[in-house]
Amino acid sequence: MGEPSELMESDVFQAYATYATVVLLKMLLMGPLTGYFRVTRKAFSNPEDARAHVGKGEENKKYLKTDPDVERVRRCHQNDLENIVPFIGIGLLYAMTGPDLSSALLHFRTFAVSRIFHSIAYLLPLPQPGRGGSWLIGMGVTISMAYRVLKTGMYL
Amino acid sequence: MGEPSELMESDVFQAYATYATVVLLKMLLMGPLTGYFRVTRKAFSNPEDARAHVGKGEENKKYLKTDPDVERVRRCHQNDLENIVPFIGIGLLYAMTGPDLSSALLHFRTFAVSRIFHSIAYLLPLPQPGRGGSWLIGMGVTISMAYRVLKTGMYL
Amino acid sequence: MGEPSELMESDVFQAYATYATVVLLKMLLMGPLTGYFRVTRKAFSNPEDARAHVGKGEENKKYLKTDPDVERVRRCHQNDLENIVPFIGIGLLYAMTGPDLSSALLHFRTFAVSRIFHSIAYLLPLPQPGRGGSWLIGMGVTISMAYRVLKTGMYL
Repeated sequence: MGEPSELMESDVFQAYATYATVVLLKMLLMGPLTGYFRVTRKAFSNPEDARAHVGKGEENKKYLKTDPDVERVRRCHQNDLENIVPFIGIGLLYAMTGPDLSSALLHFRTFAVSRIFHSIAYLLPLPQPGRGGSWLIGMGVTISMAYRVLKTGMYL
Repeated sequence: MGEPSELMESDVFQAYATYATVVLLKMLLMGPLTGYFRVTRKAFSNPEDARAHVGKGEENKKYLKTDPDVERVRRCHQNDLENIVPFIGIGLLYAMTGPDLSSALLHFRTFAVSRIFHSIAYLLPLPQPGRGGSWLIGMGVTISMAYRVLKTGMYL
Repeated sequence: MGEPSELMESDVFQAYATYATVVLLKMLLMGPLTGYFRVTRKAFSNPEDARAHVGKGEENKKYLKTDPDVERVRRCHQNDLENIVPFIGIGLLYAMTGPDLSSALLHFRTFAVSRIFHSIAYLLPLPQPGRGGSWLIGMGVTISMAYRVLKTGMYL
């Protein structure tokens, strides 16, 4: 068994590792959720998928369609990609600037809660501005972390 | 206040942190830009968004439509995801291989300029090959960094 | 010439760097593949692209269309984004938890093979459950790595 890297001994980095893993897992699980809606709504993108789930024959062409629920999950997934990717990248650098633990936890927790709420608001759906608000909060966290990274040492 | 990680004391890593943050922020800002076009063009994907921005009533169904400007921003955002994600991942590893500072800066600066130019060329739009050229240059930077990572030590 | 970072001296981290670079390059190359199909199928999203590849004139509007082959490559690319991004982020943290080299290699190799097979199955296409199975295997690897990250030290 190897030794954990030194970075992992820092509380801030461990908090980053925890929250980064949680939000990435949350994002990853949108994939199976899309699959679930595709199968239950019988709305596929690929002929080979329709064939596997609905059976062969000419009539399975009608299952190559879009479905509002499937599209909703896909937009939610896409929004995750657009927002969680910058959090992961900038958050890693932020964790390496040596912030206070309390300040780092505030950033990470706010982001994780805002993104989990965002998915719930998207999928139910909740009326606006629930979803839009949580999206803006998550973006604000990422921008605040980016500010600290650039302030700690910019090398252009 | 914690201590910055040792990695952050390297000029190359600090340059990586700066440019990675800049291009991730640039990508992140495509989100609000999409929102701006959705609101001004009254072209929404979600009924709850149309309701929030145009008002209730049956007639707001007509605002659930696609708009060429909205779709253009979305394609630009998607291209960022497809190209900036590999840069962030491979660039981090590249920065850890200990390249010359001048060589690292050349890579990071070229990538950042090419992606900013790419967005401008996409959104105005400029005639080709402006956009295609900047896309290829950015990809070339990422492939060049990947080459160094694999040359420094491949462990298959 | 700078010195490689200490992390890079670890076999596990070097294996991560190798496989992360390989799967990111694989994902990056879906971009030019999409371009190839757009040009050969004459199916463009942007008027300026149709103009560059097919020539000016009113009739090039008919090349602003979707094509089944182009859409297939794009779905394959999107699936890469959705699955390779979590692997890159969680894999980095996993590599820092100090796993056995043999266990880390098992994770990285399984993921890389499953994603390369996934692209082949998507593009040929192979009948299901070839593609679905390789997608699930890749996801399983990422979840297994996430489990170890969270077990090593969760800081919520």
